[in-house]
Amino acid sequence: MDLRESLNWRYAVKKYGKEKVADADLQEIIEAIGLSASSAGMQPYRIFVVKDTNLRKELGEGSFNPQITEASDLLVFAAVDRIDQAFIDNYIGYTAEIRGIAAAQLAEFKKSLQLHLLGRTPEENFTWAARQAYIALGTGIIAAAALKVDATPMEGFDNEKFDRLLGLSEKGLRSVVLLALGYRDEANDFYAKFKKVRLPKEELVTII
Amino acid sequence: MDLRESLNWRYAVKKYGKEKVADADLQEIIEAIGLSASSAGMQPYRIFVVKDTNLRKELGEGSFNPQITEASDLLVFAAVDRIDQAFIDNYIGYTAEIRGIAAAQLAEFKKSLQLHLLGRTPEENFTWAARQAYIALGTGIIAAAALKVDATPMEGFDNEKFDRLLGLSEKGLRSVVLLALGYRDEANDFYAKFKKVRLPKEELVTII
Repeated sequence: MDLRESLNWRYAVKKYGKEKVADADLQEIIEAIGLSASSAGMQPYRIFVVKDTNLRKELGEGSFNPQITEASDLLVFAAVDRIDQAFIDNYIGYTAEIRGIAAAQLAEFKKSLQLHLLGRTPEENFTWAARQAYIALGTGIIAAAALKVDATPMEGFDNEKFDRLLGLSEKGLRSVVLLALGYRDEANDFYAKFKKVRLPKEELVTII
Repeated sequence: MDLRESLNWRYAVKKYGKEKVADADLQEIIEAIGLSASSAGMQPYRIFVVKDTNLRKELGEGSFNPQITEASDLLVFAAVDRIDQAFIDNYIGYTAEIRGIAAAQLAEFKKSLQLHLLGRTPEENFTWAARQAYIALGTGIIAAAALKVDATPMEGFDNEKFDRLLGLSEKGLRSVVLLALGYRDEANDFYAKFKKVRLPKEELVTII
């Protein structure tokens, strides 16, 4: 299945069946998310895979998204809330380690990160980090579809509750978006029959 | 080339060669962007493909990103700045048309869009629209890599200048991110030799 077929095949599943996503497939999706394009390679977000059934129930309580509890798996994308000198230092140290060079050789890169990131307000950095998480989300959706695993990105959830129950604040993170994974219950999913609505190319794209 | 290979193959190219991306490949990338996952299917963004060489020069002037002028193609992702009743009405009308139903059959859906979107501040809606554009960006990056077309996502640009030169404000849009497309000049791109740095899985992902 090529990318275009994958994108046409997928939709935001509302009603999931009981089949579980095989661990190998889940790992493959996570692997792709980990390889997502990311500004300066910094990946300013973390992924939480919620396996705990009771926690899933608690997270889903009062939500209009039954997928939080009913899907095979639930991924929570949380963006880094505090971009500070330590975050940059860690990243530079890690980059030097991976590339087998001295951190000092990355002095220019470090300076440019400091200039860009520390010159912004914490809220501007969070905006940036959250947008990066959405690239990873998009990659995860495509990775799932390529494996014929269904997925539902979800935004309308109780962020504060998620942050609290997952202990995100003390980790310097804030939940931004969810991705449920599993297999569509086609017979019982009202949304499975809907024709995909996408803007005509001439409205979406302007050539100048 | 599968998704993981594509993601490993790609990097944010700094130095592009002179080869042009074939129109069929560019169309395929745009097609994939148009099929991106999008909240409620609304695609609250538009894409500008800047072909005009003089405009490319003007946009790139003073930028630390030579790709703006040197890449084969430049895509500008602009998010919708004003989500209002008319935007929702248009979308509902268009959805009804595509699905061959009466707009009245979408009354519940329309109500929920109104509740969610009109209950937020314009800035909250812009945040949402910009994040949606990043899903489309991620899709575009993957679509390009699948065709072995190189790509560079770029954030650090003069948004106001882009908005002005592309006439985005009067269209109710704001530029959020760029995507250059072309072919890497491997011999002259310092960045082509760098090992990709990605967090170890145990740091990126937590299983609860």
